[in-house]
Amino acid sequence: MLLRYGVIGTGAIGGYYGAKLAHAGKDVHFLLHSDYDYVRTHGLQVDSVNGDFVISKVNAYHDTINMPKCDVVMVCLKSVNNALLKQLLPPLLCEKTLIVLVQNGIGLESDLQKEFPTLYIAAGLAFICSSKHKKGIITHQSFGKLTVAPYSCQDKDLINQFLSDLIEAGIESAVAEYETARWKKAVWNIPFNGLTVALNTTTDKLLSNQFTEQLIYEMMLEVIFAANKIGDTHIDESFADIMIKTTKAMPPYSPSMKLDFDNHRAMEIYYLYSRPVAEAKKVGFAMPLTSMLEKQLAFIQSCYL
Amino acid sequence: MLLRYGVIGTGAIGGYYGAKLAHAGKDVHFLLHSDYDYVRTHGLQVDSVNGDFVISKVNAYHDTINMPKCDVVMVCLKSVNNALLKQLLPPLLCEKTLIVLVQNGIGLESDLQKEFPTLYIAAGLAFICSSKHKKGIITHQSFGKLTVAPYSCQDKDLINQFLSDLIEAGIESAVAEYETARWKKAVWNIPFNGLTVALNTTTDKLLSNQFTEQLIYEMMLEVIFAANKIGDTHIDESFADIMIKTTKAMPPYSPSMKLDFDNHRAMEIYYLYSRPVAEAKKVGFAMPLTSMLEKQLAFIQSCYL
Repeated sequence: MLLRYGVIGTGAIGGYYGAKLAHAGKDVHFLLHSDYDYVRTHGLQVDSVNGDFVISKVNAYHDTINMPKCDVVMVCLKSVNNALLKQLLPPLLCEKTLIVLVQNGIGLESDLQKEFPTLYIAAGLAFICSSKHKKGIITHQSFGKLTVAPYSCQDKDLINQFLSDLIEAGIESAVAEYETARWKKAVWNIPFNGLTVALNTTTDKLLSNQFTEQLIYEMMLEVIFAANKIGDTHIDESFADIMIKTTKAMPPYSPSMKLDFDNHRAMEIYYLYSRPVAEAKKVGFAMPLTSMLEKQLAFIQSCYL
Repeated sequence: MLLRYGVIGTGAIGGYYGAKLAHAGKDVHFLLHSDYDYVRTHGLQVDSVNGDFVISKVNAYHDTINMPKCDVVMVCLKSVNNALLKQLLPPLLCEKTLIVLVQNGIGLESDLQKEFPTLYIAAGLAFICSSKHKKGIITHQSFGKLTVAPYSCQDKDLINQFLSDLIEAGIESAVAEYETARWKKAVWNIPFNGLTVALNTTTDKLLSNQFTEQLIYEMMLEVIFAANKIGDTHIDESFADIMIKTTKAMPPYSPSMKLDFDNHRAMEIYYLYSRPVAEAKKVGFAMPLTSMLEKQLAFIQSCYL
């Protein structure tokens, strides 16, 4: 079966994964906003460490109303725009469409499920360094794995074919348990996204200072404890050490929130900070460090954006 | 009895209080460093909301070796320089000299007492907005109260005469219980000093944002809880509300640490953050917010100073 793909939000993430699938001959349809005219004319370019390529003939759309029904829709919008999904998604949905939220944070899937109670939803965890500095041109610096974590999709065949397509397109991929996958991603995201903004720096500098390295370690433990308290997860404390070691081996990196801030875009404070803190509070667990960073970021956003 | 005063550190604080005492005819001797030549030539100028004045003939010294023995020595150095006191103080000491540490933080007096076990020591809590932007010129914007909190001085006559001199010089003054006074000052200092640096802002902006106002309130409670756990203090939670209300009534203000940072001077991180956190830890009380801000400040200091 040839799956038809929709990509909502053709930026650093959606542009990369969508273009990789299209480059492998898959049937991919892209929703574009500011880049629409450019991509219609010039195509979608990926400058990747693994080899550059251009999709010259892009199935580009300005509105989902004109898009075909899709089997898999990858939502790669910034989560600050998720209220738009209520209008954006219906034209794409057939009976068994799988929506994959390739976004950062906690609570994304349950919020979408409330809007669409029968929808098949999965989380997409992108482990990738990529960015989009110019219209229609994605720069892929390193990594690229996409982990798929089913939230409300029991259709194993669909998930498996999606994975098989990803792998065929040269995208490392795997299926993971939902709660654990989301929270493990948050273990990295919560300290690094906010602290690079609050301290105007990059991952390497945070980890080469003993005080901020210690702070990052403590924040990671706080997220791990919250995860294990809230859900069915059993993330070991040693995961914090692994994340720190992995990040030390990475080149200097500006996480997505730092790129958003530097480019005067709204930051994903709600799903990355406010929501995890709120979920933890529900089960009587305080996240003082995460909560403090949330408030600092909210202040910074109010001053500069 | 005419008391002889020594002022160690003739900056925004020491310069103000020393000049006020000298202006009232008291016998005041000033240790100066970078401003020595200027003040010898031009005197010490105070531009104050309560009236400007100049001490034209200043008892100015470049080294304490040349200073006379004093009855009261007001130490107004930045606490990052307190290691110097071991050398600076001995020339000034007679049998009953009272050292008043007009500095911010926790643990200052006990550290000095370890160096000088028989010394009379008091804390000086300055509630004042003043600054020194130019050599020899102190700008006094508002407030000015100096609370004296005896740490190891049983000589009530000396304390009383010191207070009487202060009041005669137009300085509002009172005696307070040591632990409570130090910690109450910390309740204000800990959130406002560090957050104005970390978020590059002023007190008014922090309090006009709901997130940072909440953060400041939570940090104040953390300091109050630490104080009540560590010492004999019984600071009520309502003190946090009072401090916030008082600060809202103040004009936009940059606390001393913000001024230090803006002027590329070392920040008083140790006595304002690290030490309170360490003292609290000794009695099994974590100060997660204070500790997080400590680490952020240490990072900022390592990057910019």
